[in-house]
Order: sequence, then C-alpha cells, then structure tokens
Amino acid sequence: MKRHYYPYTEFRDDLKTLTQKIDKPFDTIVGISRGGLSMAQMLGEYYDIRKVYAINSIGYDDTVKLDEVRIFNIPDLSDSKSVLIVDDIVDSGDTLVKILDLFKSRYPHVNFYVASIFYKKSAKIAPTWYVKEAPSWIEFFWTVDLKEDRV
Amino acid sequence: MKRHYYPYTEFRDDLKTLTQKIDKPFDTIVGISRGGLSMAQMLGEYYDIRKVYAINSIGYDDTVKLDEVRIFNIPDLSDSKSVLIVDDIVDSGDTLVKILDLFKSRYPHVNFYVASIFYKKSAKIAPTWYVKEAPSWIEFFWTVDLKEDRV
Repeated sequence: MKRHYYPYTEFRDDLKTLTQKIDKPFDTIVGISRGGLSMAQMLGEYYDIRKVYAINSIGYDDTVKLDEVRIFNIPDLSDSKSVLIVDDIVDSGDTLVKILDLFKSRYPHVNFYVASIFYKKSAKIAPTWYVKEAPSWIEFFWTVDLKEDRV
Repeated sequence: MKRHYYPYTEFRDDLKTLTQKIDKPFDTIVGISRGGLSMAQMLGEYYDIRKVYAINSIGYDDTVKLDEVRIFNIPDLSDSKSVLIVDDIVDSGDTLVKILDLFKSRYPHVNFYVASIFYKKSAKIAPTWYVKEAPSWIEFFWTVDLKEDRV
C-alpha cells in the first residue's frame, strides 16, 4: 500500500484551512490522545484558549480492532459551554461516537463540535469540520520524524 | 527584547537529542497543557506508549503571576509504574513543583521523571533531562505558525 507522508508544513497549512472553516465559537478544546494533542495545542494557541484538555481511549491493539472502545481520563467540562473535540483523523468513528455519547450524557448543557484534519467517508459519524478525505495509509510526521532522518 | 523563533525542525531535532539523553524506562507520559502536548504526542509515538495523558494548570494570567497555581484534570496513574512528565520549558518551576507534589502524594508507588526542551537555571526545580537553556524570549512554532505567514 502506498504510504502518504504527512509533514509538519502540510499539517500547519491544513490547520490554517481548518480555522477558516470553523464558524462557531467554543471555549474549550479536547484533544483525543494521542492523535489530537498537537492539534489541540496549536488551536488552543491560535484561539487563545487555555482550557485545552485531553481524553484517552483504548480500542485498537495495533491492527486488531477490539469490540470495546474504553474511554478514560475524562476531563471536567462543568465550566465549559461549548467544546471543540479534535483528532487527527476520523476513521471508523467508533472512538468519536463513544466520546460524544459519554460527554453528552455527562454534560447535557454543553455544545459539542468536532474538528479533524482527515475524514474517511465510511466513518459512522462526520466531524463538524474537516480538511481532507483520508488517503489509505498516512505516515504522520509525529509518528516517523523522530525515528527516521528526513532532514 | 530579541525574540527567538523556534521552528518545528528545531523542535524535532531537540526531541531526538532528548531521546538520546533519556536513560530510564517509563510506561506513561503526562504532558503539561498546553506547552507539553505536542511533545507528549511525539514521544508517545517514539516510545510506542499509548498512555499519553495531559494535566492542566492555571497560574499565570498573561504577564501577571498569580500566587496560586491550580492543578486540574489530574490523570489516573493507578496502573502506571514510571511516569515521564513533559513540558516545553521549565521556567520558574512553580507549576512543576505543584504537579510533582500532587502526583507523589496521590501515587506514592510511582516513579516520576521530568523532561523538557528548555530550562531556566533560575527555576526552583530542574528537570531530570532537558536539551537547552532557555533564551529570554522564545516564539514557539505552535504559538505563531497559524497566525503568521512563515512559509
């Protein structure tokens, strides 16, 4: 399968595109760990939002997909009115559905939006905003840049 | 004051240097939000660690330093044995001292290490590993790259 290397410069440009698409206000950003953390940080800086949180899920064990997606380290959203959940890619959508269900039942007063860089049309759920459809195999810079010499 | 722009390529190289310095094993990474999130993600990928968490602190209000550093969204470390706490810079060290005190009292069975890119020698506490002494004013790529055209 052809690998599509995704460099930081493309990420930066895609985040710029994403900020042009995002047309609702929010006061909190939740990055889905690990993939959404850099995005959460950079968007937090861009929008001057300090309530930048993370949430964890376990569901894939390398290539074997488990039936259960377990969500943990759920951030406290009691003080939030509008939350942007971010992830690098919405692939199957399993994790996102679980996280949204959990958040909406725990924080019924909060508006939730979802932003991702990549989106697969076969996913169970679409992000509110995304930048690109996902190629089949993406090598994100955060996965490979420390391992290989790409200078 | 002269601003030192810190691009992604330097960050990547500094993280490579950091991985060469880190000589203890750990099973969990906690990034201090917001500054430590990209670092946490990339080190999590490098070490193949999925337990990549975040923690939040409030203490600075722009340039005014508050007396209290409040720590919140504390991740559950019950299943961890050895934790690497990461942040972009150890400046005053106030936040780090608070986080370490809190973690050590709550999880006395866990070993804690700290890694940062930058460190100011005037800080109250030194990270276990760091890469560089901090210049006076750093413009991190995650702060400015979405705002300005640096292509």
